[in-house]
Amino acid sequence: MYEHDGHQLAQKVADVMYSRDAAAQALNIEVQYVDEGNATLLMRVRDDMLNGLGICHGGMIFALADTAFAYACNSYNFNTIASGCSIDYVAPAHKDDTLVAMAEERTRSGRTGVYDVTVMNQEKKVIALFRGNSYRIKGEVIPNTEEEDAAS
Amino acid sequence: MYEHDGHQLAQKVADVMYSRDAAAQALNIEVQYVDEGNATLLMRVRDDMLNGLGICHGGMIFALADTAFAYACNSYNFNTIASGCSIDYVAPAHKDDTLVAMAEERTRSGRTGVYDVTVMNQEKKVIALFRGNSYRIKGEVIPNTEEEDAAS
Amino acid sequence: MYEHDGHQLAQKVADVMYSRDAAAQALNIEVQYVDEGNATLLMRVRDDMLNGLGICHGGMIFALADTAFAYACNSYNFNTIASGCSIDYVAPAHKDDTLVAMAEERTRSGRTGVYDVTVMNQEKKVIALFRGNSYRIKGEVIPNTEEEDAAS
Amino acid sequence: MYEHDGHQLAQKVADVMYSRDAAAQALNIEVQYVDEGNATLLMRVRDDMLNGLGICHGGMIFALADTAFAYACNSYNFNTIASGCSIDYVAPAHKDDTLVAMAEERTRSGRTGVYDVTVMNQEKKVIALFRGNSYRIKGEVIPNTEEEDAAS
Repeated sequence: MYEHDGHQLAQKVADVMYSRDAAAQALNIEVQYVDEGNATLLMRVRDDMLNGLGICHGGMIFALADTAFAYACNSYNFNTIASGCSIDYVAPAHKDDTLVAMAEERTRSGRTGVYDVTVMNQEKKVIALFRGNSYRIKGEVIPNTEEEDAAS
Repeated sequence: MYEHDGHQLAQKVADVMYSRDAAAQALNIEVQYVDEGNATLLMRVRDDMLNGLGICHGGMIFALADTAFAYACNSYNFNTIASGCSIDYVAPAHKDDTLVAMAEERTRSGRTGVYDVTVMNQEKKVIALFRGNSYRIKGEVIPNTEEEDAAS
Repeated sequence: MYEHDGHQLAQKVADVMYSRDAAAQALNIEVQYVDEGNATLLMRVRDDMLNGLGICHGGMIFALADTAFAYACNSYNFNTIASGCSIDYVAPAHKDDTLVAMAEERTRSGRTGVYDVTVMNQEKKVIALFRGNSYRIKGEVIPNTEEEDAAS
Repeated sequence: MYEHDGHQLAQKVADVMYSRDAAAQALNIEVQYVDEGNATLLMRVRDDMLNGLGICHGGMIFALADTAFAYACNSYNFNTIASGCSIDYVAPAHKDDTLVAMAEERTRSGRTGVYDVTVMNQEKKVIALFRGNSYRIKGEVIPNTEEEDAAS
């Protein structure tokens, strides 16, 4: 079944990932959309995400982008980890901003891939640009997919 | 006073930063050592820092490295933010590992600087390499330092 | 005049840059298209661009991408330099491949900008992904533009 | 023999690499020192390495750093290529400067490694910081080493 519906599989994988993802839950990150190689996530900047300067902590912006990257690169249900990533902070994010992180697959071949994540605020202003390098390891996010399929 | 004792100022700045740094406190990050342009921080890998694969979440390793970078680049008491950073994940970190992040200043001139952070586990195995680009903005971490000095 | 025709200015700037750009000329790089914030350049992989493994030297691919970045970020006629860049090599390029480097502006505000360059071969296969950080300095690529305009 | 003398092997590999390295020769790059995982290279900034602003072209600084990285990561005689790299330009280099690029291995495990290259001028001023990710492929730089050994 899954072979014929990558979008549905991506959603199922995202649900399973989110249920295990204490960090994303603690940040109230919302998975708005996932598809093969893509993911769009939302996060509202809370009081406890501000740094001493009163703007959103760069680490929180990174966490959002990194999470979007993870959902995009695992969307095929192959366990995939980050081998590296980089972020450029473009503009500050402020309290109560709703940040949108859009992860897009740029390339994927063999075990490796490159994903770009653009973080914008509610006014479509770019807050940060993130690039992630992915590496596929053994196993699947949802194990025994084939068995389940056979059973259903 | 501070001009003559950069090490002492760096420590004072780190104390103030930590008191405001809810994220670092929540991760039980410990500031072991700070000096001008350098910082060494510790973090123990807890259960709630593991990802679905049972190894330490890359975002947690990033958070530790990023925090070490922040303490190093703010150690001169000038408000300094990240303009960008990159991380290479070298080896996995496991539950109960004690991670050490050592941030070292590579260059600093004008408003910008480059800092390298090496994250190792308790066996001196390299877990991740982080590089941060800093940008000095207006203001001081501990404001009115001179007045306070005059008053003391 | 130029204010009203960014595309024409970008072309004029590219012509002047190319006339001074001994490196681009030596590599037979061809500027196919430029516009505000964008540039598309071509380079054919020659014998003398191969490394010991018989594939195109990574430094040559970088040179092409870096040049496309330069033409894109200088297209507004403000002298602009690279503050940093990164490249991911995705697939090898071979002798006689015609490489296309497309530089696109991701963000630009104040003095800084971020540009993405995609290098593809003649079959649209991605060879490398490059990201450049730009910094605007004093002066113009074509100096005294206004005077010249006034005189013409 | 080689197993017992990594330094000698690194030198032999560097000699072979240089003899094939038309780009390094054209830039008059000099290999000053190589050892296992390390390499120190020199390059004098010539007239034809300057850009339109009269300072050394960033691409030339990259080429020097990238070459140092290549000699360091191939020093074990295993064919090794770059999977990605990044550079931060710290200060300009000028005509007649003698640039020194020191490549140091930060990590190496399995097929991958991370190397840092510091480019300085003759006054030990840092000009650029480069980080390279290496990937070991099939084959050796000096093939049939064992046969040659047996024959000698």
